Amino acid sequence: MTGPFEDATAVDRTGPNRFAARIRPGWDIVGNANGGYLLSVTARAMARAADRPDPLSVTAHYLTPGSAGEAVVHTDVVRSGRRLATTTAVLSSQGRDILSALGTFGDLSHDHGPASHPEFVDGAPPELPPPPECRPVVPGEVFPPPFMDHVEVRLHPDDAAFLDGRRSGTARIRSWIRLPHGERIDPIALMTVVDSLPPTVFNVDLPIGWTPTVELTTHVRAVPSPGWLAVDARSRFISGGFLEVDTEVWDRGDRLVAQSRQLALVPRPATTDAA
Amino acid sequence: MTGPFEDATAVDRTGPNRFAARIRPGWDIVGNANGGYLLSVTARAMARAADRPDPLSVTAHYLTPGSAGEAVVHTDVVRSGRRLATTTAVLSSQGRDILSALGTFGDLSHDHGPASHPEFVDGAPPELPPPPECRPVVPGEVFPPPFMDHVEVRLHPDDAAFLDGRRSGTARIRSWIRLPHGERIDPIALMTVVDSLPPTVFNVDLPIGWTPTVELTTHVRAVPSPGWLAVDARSRFISGGFLEVDTEVWDRGDRLVAQSRQLALVPRPATTDAA
Repeated sequence: MTGPFEDATAVDRTGPNRFAARIRPGWDIVGNANGGYLLSVTARAMARAADRPDPLSVTAHYLTPGSAGEAVVHTDVVRSGRRLATTTAVLSSQGRDILSALGTFGDLSHDHGPASHPEFVDGAPPELPPPPECRPVVPGEVFPPPFMDHVEVRLHPDDAAFLDGRRSGTARIRSWIRLPHGERIDPIALMTVVDSLPPTVFNVDLPIGWTPTVELTTHVRAVPSPGWLAVDARSRFISGGFLEVDTEVWDRGDRLVAQSRQLALVPRPATTDAA
Repeated sequence: MTGPFEDATAVDRTGPNRFAARIRPGWDIVGNANGGYLLSVTARAMARAADRPDPLSVTAHYLTPGSAGEAVVHTDVVRSGRRLATTTAVLSSQGRDILSALGTFGDLSHDHGPASHPEFVDGAPPELPPPPECRPVVPGEVFPPPFMDHVEVRLHPDDAAFLDGRRSGTARIRSWIRLPHGERIDPIALMTVVDSLPPTVFNVDLPIGWTPTVELTTHVRAVPSPGWLAVDARSRFISGGFLEVDTEVWDRGDRLVAQSRQLALVPRPATTDAA
């Protein structure tokens, strides 16, 4: 049985290095498909091409916004070793290249934890009240966007100030996330999870509304256990016309399952110049 | 006048998408060329292909170790917009692909600081005693490697414990870095700077000696001012057979000039299995 996420990110192999896909309606923010969702679609094709189940590190550079419609992923496996395989990919739709990706894939089920490798952890999940005491984000007429129907988000009440027109003053959003209908979050779905929260800049008092992603890199560090994931997204440097968003994802076993960073453009105030 | 670093990373265009390069002897660690150095060579070709001076975000996946010899960079510009251009690249040498890269390039001289864009900074350079009070790392017979002749490194005394066979207990290395002979560190040289410090794991008590880089992503946030740069490298999660190294680079004006993260393999103790 497939779930809605697996279905919305499915790819069909139509050649040794070619996969047919479909960017589904409703996975968008104001008409542009969510960048993490587009990367999950692409990563599914890359994993098949690489013949390895799990993305370990995947980077996408976003070339033009994607919208609902037929799409194709072209892959090129540049190295296939004993444990790891590396492949490039381009996701195209409606005659335009949407994103270019580069990733290394492997099998995370080989990870048997501290028994097999030395471990050292200097970090902890974000402090979050239980999900029922957190703030859901549900789609409105324009905002929050329809994408929020496809992931269940429960914001830390302190970080949800922007929903009421206030600002917490810190460019940080802590949240629970899960997929609806109990669908399991696999390593490929983590590529979407890291890009599912409202922008961190909504919590600082700057004239910034629109921050197109230039680049997004995700490292998957472990297969998540089922249930809510705790997500901690933070921007520390909004400078020189760019900002980064660093995101950590933890499972209910308090294990770090993904780390991501994206670089986004901060357009000058009162312009909507394209990159 | 070119400096030794610029010379060692020079590329010659030999076709629209082809650049000749040379991996120089002496830029290695136990025979394998430094990964940051290899990426600087590659990024120089990518910048030329993209017709933009500065790397904004570049990711490399390392396929096989590189050693001194003739090399070639093949590029493929996947998008060229008004401000930004994105290109892929493969660095090859002696019939083998050494690394695959993906990057977006632009012109950082367009950054005029807070005057042109809103700014918000939640971070500061690492606390470091003045360079003369820090610990130099100079090449020995085997370790430190000959690469340390090409960058001047002055470690925080607290983080230099491993040089005396002790461990600080924190997987962190803070250091000053500059190029010898007063050579200017440009955005392409920052790709080398972020990979120039001794491994953070040397400061924790784990049986880890050898951590091959799988992936390295660098965001260049500003053109550094001349002089020493303060570098802060830290690993927070050594788990599941992998570790990340997060590095921040600050210039003497206390401006963040680069952020990088790499994912590296932690081989099982007492094996030297290749990936």
